[in-house]
Amino acid sequence: MDKIRNGWFSEISNLWPGQCFSLKVKQVLCRDKSEFQDILVFESTNNGTALVLDGIIQCTEKDEFSYQEMISFVPLCIHPKPEKVLIVGGGDGGVAREVDKHPLVKEIVQVEIDEKVVAASKKHLPFMSKGFQSPKLTLNICDGFEFMKNHVNEFDVVITDSSDPIGPAVNLFTETYFKLLKNALKPNGIICSQGGSMWSELDQLKQTMDNCRKHFKTVQYATSSVPSYPDGQIGYVVAALEEHVDLKKPAFRFTDVQIEELKLRYYNEEVHGAAFVLPNFVRKVICK
Amino acid sequence: MDKIRNGWFSEISNLWPGQCFSLKVKQVLCRDKSEFQDILVFESTNNGTALVLDGIIQCTEKDEFSYQEMISFVPLCIHPKPEKVLIVGGGDGGVAREVDKHPLVKEIVQVEIDEKVVAASKKHLPFMSKGFQSPKLTLNICDGFEFMKNHVNEFDVVITDSSDPIGPAVNLFTETYFKLLKNALKPNGIICSQGGSMWSELDQLKQTMDNCRKHFKTVQYATSSVPSYPDGQIGYVVAALEEHVDLKKPAFRFTDVQIEELKLRYYNEEVHGAAFVLPNFVRKVICK
Repeated sequence: MDKIRNGWFSEISNLWPGQCFSLKVKQVLCRDKSEFQDILVFESTNNGTALVLDGIIQCTEKDEFSYQEMISFVPLCIHPKPEKVLIVGGGDGGVAREVDKHPLVKEIVQVEIDEKVVAASKKHLPFMSKGFQSPKLTLNICDGFEFMKNHVNEFDVVITDSSDPIGPAVNLFTETYFKLLKNALKPNGIICSQGGSMWSELDQLKQTMDNCRKHFKTVQYATSSVPSYPDGQIGYVVAALEEHVDLKKPAFRFTDVQIEELKLRYYNEEVHGAAFVLPNFVRKVICK
Repeated sequence: MDKIRNGWFSEISNLWPGQCFSLKVKQVLCRDKSEFQDILVFESTNNGTALVLDGIIQCTEKDEFSYQEMISFVPLCIHPKPEKVLIVGGGDGGVAREVDKHPLVKEIVQVEIDEKVVAASKKHLPFMSKGFQSPKLTLNICDGFEFMKNHVNEFDVVITDSSDPIGPAVNLFTETYFKLLKNALKPNGIICSQGGSMWSELDQLKQTMDNCRKHFKTVQYATSSVPSYPDGQIGYVVAALEEHVDLKKPAFRFTDVQIEELKLRYYNEEVHGAAFVLPNFVRKVICK
């Protein structure tokens, strides 16, 4: 069920064959099995508490802020008025925690398929699950894919904080999903989806972006550094309904005082723009 | 001597406690011990051939281009006329390979302390050691620190491609070394040194930058994504003798045709600028 041996958790997956990241375990806090996946939470010796689903690290306390801030603030700050936001997935609460900080957001709807992930986070990952305490948030336990069929023209921003395209999240990378996203958005809507690694999953990324381009007029990939993800890097598929939206230029800019007060440890206006700058080997494959 | 168990090489170090990156081994190509360090070269199952010194991965064939291109072209392209270049370290030949590509470079001097690393690279890492075939290159086998005491006002750019600040490279992060670098440079000189991870080595990085600032007027940190380095990220201490040099803005710009012909897989003008953009948690500690 999990891969702890000799006091180390090792993340072995066919998604990144021949390489493996390991964390030293201080103590296991939770081992559970839901209808959808295996759930493991452990305290590591040096990276804080870690959440693992189906053997894949979802977050560690040391570096989770990079992912949570980027997947939230990149789309929120592109939109000039992100009042109503949908989060698909994000069962640990980290994205809700960040979305709640944005001064223009009035209402957050979240759809998570696995209530056992929410429960494990509430019990063992208080730094993540504090997102669930947001007074702006309504949390629904159901399938995000199904949920969106009944929600049309409703959201300014949709953030898809999913696991990788195997297991329960597989539908969230398909063309049909991007069509549902398009329909769920109001005019000028922006989406941001977990897009995987540019190093190990470039073919899958290209496929996801092609699927997205069938329904969105502006589509780009942004990246950030997250040591405990495969390749130490993760990216985001960011898209706008409208043409010629400059995704690199945030409409909303946090002041230095806000960055301090809201405890933003990764995201700032310059990081936003730089995240869209890609190495030649990636640009060549996914840019149009 | 090396850490291969059950067919996997694992990189365990006190520099990044509690975390470990592993590569699956297809075959070991070379195990040697020099006066300075343990040398291991192996073919991995999915990341090509890897060079390991004292148990730390120096490069893998899959992703080495990110590091070699960035540590070379960032300083070379900042300098308006980088005619004479010194490489300290870089015993695998990868940096010489990239420096040789820059159209304005006329002469490359390299100083590597360990001839056994050069020999292992020539035998087992032809994609790296082809740098040694550059007609512009003179290779010296000696201590870079000592070499520079006798070379004053001679170079436009000095690139320090060292291992981490333990073992033979420890001197290359000290204040005295940056003083030697300053003296070795001609006016308008630029340096670039391997600076370690912003995630696991931030205190050491701050110390290195403080040492550098005692002798250089403009000092910044740039970063790139390298999956097989700790945290999947490595950075570069980039500095100019003169004040108010905009390190983010390259004086020399490769055209798209040059990028194609010279096989630049990572570096481009936009990547150059974006590499200097840092997350808040790093900016706070190292920026002045």
